[in-house]
Amino acid sequence: MALLFLSPDDPADLWRAELQARMPGLDVRIWPQVGDPAEIDIALVWRPPPGELARYPNLRAILSLAAGTDGLVADPDLPDVPIARMVDPSLTRTMTEYVLLAVLRHHREFDCFERAQRAREWAYAFPPQAADRRVGIMGLGELGSAAARALVAQGFQVLGWSRTPKMLDGVLSYPGRSELHAFLHRTDILVCLLPLTADTVGILDAAIFAELPHGACVINVARGQHLVEGDLLQALDSGHLGGATLDVFREEPLPQGSPLWDHPKVRVTPHVASYSVPSTAADGVAANIRRVSAGEPLLHQVDRVRGY
Amino acid sequence: MALLFLSPDDPADLWRAELQARMPGLDVRIWPQVGDPAEIDIALVWRPPPGELARYPNLRAILSLAAGTDGLVADPDLPDVPIARMVDPSLTRTMTEYVLLAVLRHHREFDCFERAQRAREWAYAFPPQAADRRVGIMGLGELGSAAARALVAQGFQVLGWSRTPKMLDGVLSYPGRSELHAFLHRTDILVCLLPLTADTVGILDAAIFAELPHGACVINVARGQHLVEGDLLQALDSGHLGGATLDVFREEPLPQGSPLWDHPKVRVTPHVASYSVPSTAADGVAANIRRVSAGEPLLHQVDRVRGY
Repeated sequence: MALLFLSPDDPADLWRAELQARMPGLDVRIWPQVGDPAEIDIALVWRPPPGELARYPNLRAILSLAAGTDGLVADPDLPDVPIARMVDPSLTRTMTEYVLLAVLRHHREFDCFERAQRAREWAYAFPPQAADRRVGIMGLGELGSAAARALVAQGFQVLGWSRTPKMLDGVLSYPGRSELHAFLHRTDILVCLLPLTADTVGILDAAIFAELPHGACVINVARGQHLVEGDLLQALDSGHLGGATLDVFREEPLPQGSPLWDHPKVRVTPHVASYSVPSTAADGVAANIRRVSAGEPLLHQVDRVRGY
Repeated sequence: MALLFLSPDDPADLWRAELQARMPGLDVRIWPQVGDPAEIDIALVWRPPPGELARYPNLRAILSLAAGTDGLVADPDLPDVPIARMVDPSLTRTMTEYVLLAVLRHHREFDCFERAQRAREWAYAFPPQAADRRVGIMGLGELGSAAARALVAQGFQVLGWSRTPKMLDGVLSYPGRSELHAFLHRTDILVCLLPLTADTVGILDAAIFAELPHGACVINVARGQHLVEGDLLQALDSGHLGGATLDVFREEPLPQGSPLWDHPKVRVTPHVASYSVPSTAADGVAANIRRVSAGEPLLHQVDRVRGY
């Protein structure tokens, strides 16, 4: 049993140590020092080069280091083996924190206060109570559900749009395309936590923005490809949208020339909304490695047809 | 029974309507249209001019529109009648929101991201998990306790410093001056929610900042007089403190010439952290008006010797 570890961003040595603490003797090969490709059984990856995973003839499973597996399933040469997405308490907790922070910033009008501070202006603004502020979450999976619960706990009105109906305490469920219109009309702060699929690519476009109430804000923490950046800029500049918080972009790092960087209504962060910590995430990865050994189905397996 | 309403900032007509909805026929006199001062039984006030309340010979109680009553008890001519501070779900909820927002901004290093955005820099920063971040709250009254509970719910390590020991789930209690040293040494993000008294005026000074760990942040949402602004600036400029969020100031509005306005490590907001909404706050006020009529003690009565 040999594990391939391949990620440009994650700490390989720390991952090896955490996995070996749970599975002494586990053979971890850190890409590109792989040895004989035929010895690799399992790949633990983030953004592998397209075609790379086809090089391992005996691969039995792919474990993603990220919650979103859109990059993997987009690889036309991906071997036909089970894929598991990352589910990890630290990933969920950091995303919940970021969403709560971004929603509270818009709710409490911190963009206005930051502008006023630069102008040395003492300008009151008393926003509506949380109970009168409607936060709409697109995508109620692992991350969306956790964010929804935290926003309910803060007293917001929370709406959720998802493929299928979801029962979450205090969250109004708007399932399917037919409910999207009603969902958007009632959303003051929109949070995108959708998986990226053929159905959701480019979903945050002019048509969606036009359905939001005047002054609504948009938070994208899913994938850059969900957003049509030009449509967002137009909706902000026309005054229809009040602001945006963007953590993900079509091209990352965001190019120097992007007009998003210095737009007064846009807060840019560099894809940091959620991150997993090997010390907690290694539990779930080790559990899945044992399942592969035992010939059992993976936890959190991706449905390749659905795309997530 | 006539009620004097006196506030430069609160919506008088809305308050009258909300009170009369609960107590039909209540005689509400909006300052300065007071009529015969001898007819006033109760005063509902925010920042009355010093000496003003001494003009009402038959005053039986003073109800504060704010949680902090330091301005009232500082009036040497204040009549010797019971004072009640404002306790209101909306006041508590808005303060909790603001504290959560300010703590999350520091925790997730939004100051860094905002600087990076202005420089068009894509710079990762992955802060420690909330479980490894220690938030110390000075003052565990109505507002401090609620903020502490919300921070515990977000997974932070929460410490509380208060005059007397407090039992709050998940909050380490450091009571009294003797525990202040230990409390400060373990606090990464300090939140001041103390009442302003002779004991706490100027408490946020160089000595306190020196005891905080390197890189700690300070949030003041209590009163401007708690903070020695020059000491804060020095601790920020020396690099010892990482940042500050200030909602209250010695002089309000903050003077145009204050160096706080454009300090890169300081976020200024114009005394908006908490605000009550007459639609909810009128319940508690009406209850206290009825208590005065019935000769019963006030709810949330201020201890004049203690100062809050």
